Parts: sequence; C-alpha cells; structure tokens
Amino acid sequence: MTKEDQLIERVHRRFPAAPVNGTGTGRQRGSRLRIGIGDDAAVLRPGDGMEWVVTTDAFLEKVHFLRTLHSAKSVGYKALARATSDIAAMGAHPQYFFLTIGLPPSCTGAWFDDFLEAMARAAGRLGLTLAGGDTTNYSTVVISLTIVGEVDRGRAILRSGAQPGDMLCVSGTLGEAELGWHLAQRKFHRQKSWARLLKKHFYPEPRLALGEWLAAHQYATSMIDTSDGLSTDLGHICKASEVGAKVWAAKLPAVRIPPKLPQLDLDPLNLALNGGEDYELLFTVPKKLASRLPEKVAGISLTVIGEITREKKVILVGRDGRSTLLQPKGWDPFRKKS
Amino acid sequence: MTKEDQLIERVHRRFPAAPVNGTGTGRQRGSRLRIGIGDDAAVLRPGDGMEWVVTTDAFLEKVHFLRTLHSAKSVGYKALARATSDIAAMGAHPQYFFLTIGLPPSCTGAWFDDFLEAMARAAGRLGLTLAGGDTTNYSTVVISLTIVGEVDRGRAILRSGAQPGDMLCVSGTLGEAELGWHLAQRKFHRQKSWARLLKKHFYPEPRLALGEWLAAHQYATSMIDTSDGLSTDLGHICKASEVGAKVWAAKLPAVRIPPKLPQLDLDPLNLALNGGEDYELLFTVPKKLASRLPEKVAGISLTVIGEITREKKVILVGRDGRSTLLQPKGWDPFRKKS
Repeated sequence: MTKEDQLIERVHRRFPAAPVNGTGTGRQRGSRLRIGIGDDAAVLRPGDGMEWVVTTDAFLEKVHFLRTLHSAKSVGYKALARATSDIAAMGAHPQYFFLTIGLPPSCTGAWFDDFLEAMARAAGRLGLTLAGGDTTNYSTVVISLTIVGEVDRGRAILRSGAQPGDMLCVSGTLGEAELGWHLAQRKFHRQKSWARLLKKHFYPEPRLALGEWLAAHQYATSMIDTSDGLSTDLGHICKASEVGAKVWAAKLPAVRIPPKLPQLDLDPLNLALNGGEDYELLFTVPKKLASRLPEKVAGISLTVIGEITREKKVILVGRDGRSTLLQPKGWDPFRKKS
Repeated sequence: MTKEDQLIERVHRRFPAAPVNGTGTGRQRGSRLRIGIGDDAAVLRPGDGMEWVVTTDAFLEKVHFLRTLHSAKSVGYKALARATSDIAAMGAHPQYFFLTIGLPPSCTGAWFDDFLEAMARAAGRLGLTLAGGDTTNYSTVVISLTIVGEVDRGRAILRSGAQPGDMLCVSGTLGEAELGWHLAQRKFHRQKSWARLLKKHFYPEPRLALGEWLAAHQYATSMIDTSDGLSTDLGHICKASEVGAKVWAAKLPAVRIPPKLPQLDLDPLNLALNGGEDYELLFTVPKKLASRLPEKVAGISLTVIGEITREKKVILVGRDGRSTLLQPKGWDPFRKKS
C-alpha cells in the first residue's frame, strides 16, 4: 500500500461513507450516494424534483489561516463550515462534500488526525457526507473543498433578484469574526475570558437553517453570505441585481467591543461594514413581507439594515443623517498581505 | 471592483457560461446549468434517468508541474485533461467543471491569460462548461478542479467489478508520458524532433470516447485510468474487486525508445509498468467478450495484457516465462521528491 493509500484509508475510517444503496430512488436523505470514496469518482443519484447546488472553496495556509495560530482542529472545522456557507446562501440543504488536500510530511501524523476529527464533527453538524477527494504531498497545507447541496427545483435564492423598494436584512452580528481575528493576532485566544468572542473566527457556523427557512417560505428575493464583509458582499448583490442600496449605520447589528478590552483602536462600525468571515446571511425581502419577518429564525436574530434603490449606488446613511458612498473595503485576497 | 473580481471577470470572459435556461428539462446537452459563474454556487438540474459522476483533482506547482519547465498553456490544458480522465475511467460523459486556483501576483497577467486560453481549448475538446470556482492569491500556483459528468443510471464502470477469468485490457501505449517527462527534464522539449514523444506529457488526452463506448456496450466489468502507473493502478482494481491478476510482459504495449535517442538508461518495460500520467484506460472484460473486442475504438488501440485471477496477488509473467510479484511502484506523491 502506498503512503497516499494509507492516508486515504485514514480519511475513509474517519468518514465512513453512507451505505451504498443501488436501488434508492426516494427523496429520503442518504440514499443518493451510489458510490463514495474509493473509486475514480463518486456517483450521485439526483432526487426527483430537486436541483443541485455546487460550490468550491480554497482554504490555504498563510492566506486564510496560519499554522502557528490556528490549530489543526480549527482548520478542519472552519474549512468545511466556510465552504458550506455558500450552500446556506442559496437556501439549499447540504448533502455531500469532496476534500482535496495537500500536506507537508510533518502534518501527516497527529496534525492530520486532529484535522480529520474536527472536520468530521463539522460534517456531522452540517449534515454532510464525504463523497471523495484527492490527497497529495505539498510544502504548505492547501485545502480545496467542493460542497454539493440540494434545493427544490427553482427555489435557489440568487444574488440577482433584488428589486428597488425591497428591504435589506442581515442575520446575527456583524464584525464579530474580524474582532476575533484582531484578538487572535494579539494572542488573546489563549485567555479563556475571550473564548466567546473568538469562537466565530475559529469555529464559524453557517446559517443553514435560516437559509433553508427563507427558501421554503419564499421570503427572500436575493441572498449572499457575508464572507468578504458587508460592503463588498452588498456590492455583489447590487451588481448582480442591477440596483443600488442604502444602508442605515444606526441599524447595523455591529459587534460590541467590551469596555474591559485594552484599547485596540477598533471601530465597531468599520468592523461591521468591512470585517470578513462572519458568514451571516445578507438578503432582500419585499417591503410588504418585511414587517412579517420574525425577530429570530432558528435562534438567529434578523435585522432590517437598509433598502434597495433604483439608483445604482451603495450609500451609507450615517447616524448624523449624512449620506456617503459605501466603498467595497472587505476582504480581497489580492490586496491584503497576510 | 476588487482585484479578485477583476480576475473572475477575466475567467468569465474566457468561459462564457452556457445560456441560462430556467425551463429546460430535456436531456439535450447544455440545458442543465441553471446558474453558472457569478453566484454563491452553481445550480444544476439533473437529466432524467441519469446519474452524476463527480471527481476532484489537485494540480500543484513543484509537485505536479514546474513553472520553469511547463508553460502556462501546458499547465492550463493538462490540469483539466488529467482531472477529466477520472470521468473517462467511469465511462461517463463530462459536463461541467469548477476551477479553484491560487496564484502569485506575478502570474495574474500574461501567464493567467495563456493558462485560461489553453484551459478553454481543453474544455472545448472535452465538452466541459465552466460552472464556478474560487480565485485567490498564493505564493505558488495551486489548482484544484472539480469535474461533473453524467452517465446513464447504473452504467458507471467501477473499480470493483473484476471477476476471476476476466481478461485485462489497456488502451494506447504505456510509459510514453514518463519517457516524455525524462526528455523534458533534460530540456529536449525545446527540440522539435521530439515533439510527438513529449505531447503526452504536456498535453495529455483522456480516453473519453473509449470510456463511453465501453459503458454503452457494457463490455467492461471494471475500469481505472493509468494516472499513477500500471503497477499501482492495477493494484487498485485488484484490491477493490478482491481478486489478483497476471500481466504478460511480452504483451505490454510499451513505449518504444527511439534508437537515435542518447543513452538515458531507460527500460521500456519499467516505463510501461511504473510510468505515471499516461491516462490510458485499464479495464477488465469477460473472457467470452474479449475476442469480440475491436482492435481500436475511436482511433485508440486496445491490447489484452493479462487476466484476472482468484489468488489475490499481482504477478508479472516475464518474457522468459518466469513469474514475479509485481509491486506497486507507480507515482506516490508522498514517496517521490520533486
């Protein structure tokens, strides 16, 4: 058995594939993976009346994480959670994933065990079954994930459906992951008292239940996840929908910076507008439905933060009532150094 | 527009997605991609009576290619061709692909244009439409591809179906890509006279037509592509099928080393048994069907090179009639240095 085969065996043991079911045609979960790990490719049988939602995501050492700061467990969990956030952003239900990974020889032992353990935990929470992948040697840890989800035919929520007059809504709190990242860089993650603030950075939770709820109730006309930051991700909705937007600074559910935190010179508004990796859902709702929107779905608060406009500009209305152009200043891997 | 968005735009221009067709339900090609590049995920509508075949493949600078030796065009072409070989190995028909790529800033200009041009050429030949992906900054060029193919329900050819008594067959010539790699390392690729021998290394052609033919005619009981080398890939079939095999050295369609080639101390038998990246198809055929197998399918020669045995060993029968154990000595990314 080659070394590569041995690694694949370890992956296989950690992720026992769903039982092969050559005759399953029903819509029950788990019956659609005819062939999983161990062949040249996976074979998936589609469900009746369903569409498939497929996304890929790169998670690379020194760009998206640091091995000196992020444990193997955080890397394994976060890699899968952030990739699956794009399935939530379509209102779809996650089903299968493919793990492609390059590893230095120094990471093929305990590091890889911890990585797989945490990824298996994430897969369990997210409802994902490993269906295949590729394992190879590399000088750094490079990860690429492909996630396959399912949605009722025609129900996927796209970026392109926002209409002038729609209300702009967001889930949860904005800027929390970016605050966590600032704390982590200053080694605050070693102090238990900051654990709650750091959780979103190290172990994010995609808003799957909310996404599926919005798709099932047909509330949202457009949706995206806030992976790059509100200012950048709202720009993507506006561009795809050929509209503009107004965001009310006073309404933003911005992260609260605890007073006992040493002065880090962090501005909550800036974190909320431009902080990346929150993996909240940003979506638009027709005005007449917005008043019927619950305060919370699956325990996650929803906030109306603005409205969609005909004029193709993204405007921030400050607490003082002054309007300024909101530039996309979220995460851009080709601008930032890390 | 962020720098990342600009790169995505360039990808989009090079690969105009199949027209969005929200109502297409037929089995005609091109109608199943409801949403392609530009949203959080792609939305695919399955064809009636079809199964989906999904594979992922990593193609990493300094492990799988060298930027000093492999042009951007070779990298773009080969990345897609080798990933699609796994679709051929299932007897499936390629449909969509997802490109995840990390690039150094020095490669975002002309290098990326050449890369995309060649990948678009490969996509055209292979019948693939780009459906999505992820672009990011990285210190080296790291590529991960996901290929989605289609096959009639239940017709995918697995590794696990070989039966004792089946004949073992292979397409094309074995060891050609490895010979090309030896020539390329010695800079022979700059001499036109060796172009034909080098083509398989720089611009491989997966055996899609043959794979689909074998699936349609239900000739093959098991199949794999020779990406790692015959000795390793045959081991995979034997392990999955719980059988052994005998390979007749005298029957191997081994690459011919031209006499005018300077003495490189290369053994054709060794190249044929252990050389990687040929992307030929290795498959098993019931004995009674083997005699009816055409000499060529879609212009590619087929050769019977051995038989499947009940005893779970892989044996090489030499030209002198002596039997030896055939160890898997093909490509293993965790053993070789490059």
